[in-house]
Amino acid sequence: MKKEPLFPPQGTDKSEIEEGSVFAPRFDKDGLIPVVAAEAATGEVLMVAYMNAEALARTIETGEAHYWSRSRGKLWRKGETSGNAQRVVELRTDCDQDALLLKVELTGSEACCHTGRRSCFYRAVPLGEPIGKDGVTLRLIDGERRFDPESVYRHSGAANRTLKKSE
Amino acid sequence: MKKEPLFPPQGTDKSEIEEGSVFAPRFDKDGLIPVVAAEAATGEVLMVAYMNAEALARTIETGEAHYWSRSRGKLWRKGETSGNAQRVVELRTDCDQDALLLKVELTGSEACCHTGRRSCFYRAVPLGEPIGKDGVTLRLIDGERRFDPESVYRHSGAANRTLKKSE
Repeated sequence: MKKEPLFPPQGTDKSEIEEGSVFAPRFDKDGLIPVVAAEAATGEVLMVAYMNAEALARTIETGEAHYWSRSRGKLWRKGETSGNAQRVVELRTDCDQDALLLKVELTGSEACCHTGRRSCFYRAVPLGEPIGKDGVTLRLIDGERRFDPESVYRHSGAANRTLKKSE
Repeated sequence: MKKEPLFPPQGTDKSEIEEGSVFAPRFDKDGLIPVVAAEAATGEVLMVAYMNAEALARTIETGEAHYWSRSRGKLWRKGETSGNAQRVVELRTDCDQDALLLKVELTGSEACCHTGRRSCFYRAVPLGEPIGKDGVTLRLIDGERRFDPESVYRHSGAANRTLKKSE
């Protein structure tokens, strides 16, 4: 596997970027691209994470989701610690090729979030009210834990580590 | 409506951020947070865009999706030009409150992408092959246009303008 996989640099021709068939993902100034992982069968949005070029190449070549951990500064194969991997059913790029969508099947306890939940999006923000001086109170929507993060990550201080989603 | 809506700054207590009920979204160094818009009824991921604090506050208060256009450097109410707005059914935050999920109902021609497609994710990246020196060839999955971007945006050079998704 190449250490520095190469994707072609994105040009300036909007029509080619949006309508062409050349995959030229645009990485940001940190070399990252945001990725939405959604469950293939249901469409449920599970998490947002980031890939660098190497994580993207490994994901394409192996069909297993790899990300770049911004908090740990390293490549990470989803599930390498938790056992909760993501098998990629489909990978899509958006119009201007600066965001990706992974449709995945879940393995293990079928949880994507490092807090033990299925999805990272387990809290809702109420709508339709003016934002008062006390701010906005979140509502827990799907708080069920599929695993115990303390025991899975084997860190007594796991709750206070800056674990980036689902690592 | 407040010109500078205030959300509380995010603290350093991971447990409070992940398990608490205080909405303290983390904006990046440009003051933006990534947002996934998905269709409420089907779960289909439609686009990834960005909000600043004001766009987020307006979205919460009005129930209509507002974003920050990075290319135009301005607040934008989805559909203000195209007529294809997004009515927000639900807004969720992720575990570490640095990404948002909008579940929306579409109006107008039910297209989210500025190219006229329903979703910005209309091209797939093939999986399972080593990445060769010629790179990766995209496959058009759902290319149907719901509107003609040239006539909707009334710019003869629309295809080459840096329109940020669905504006």
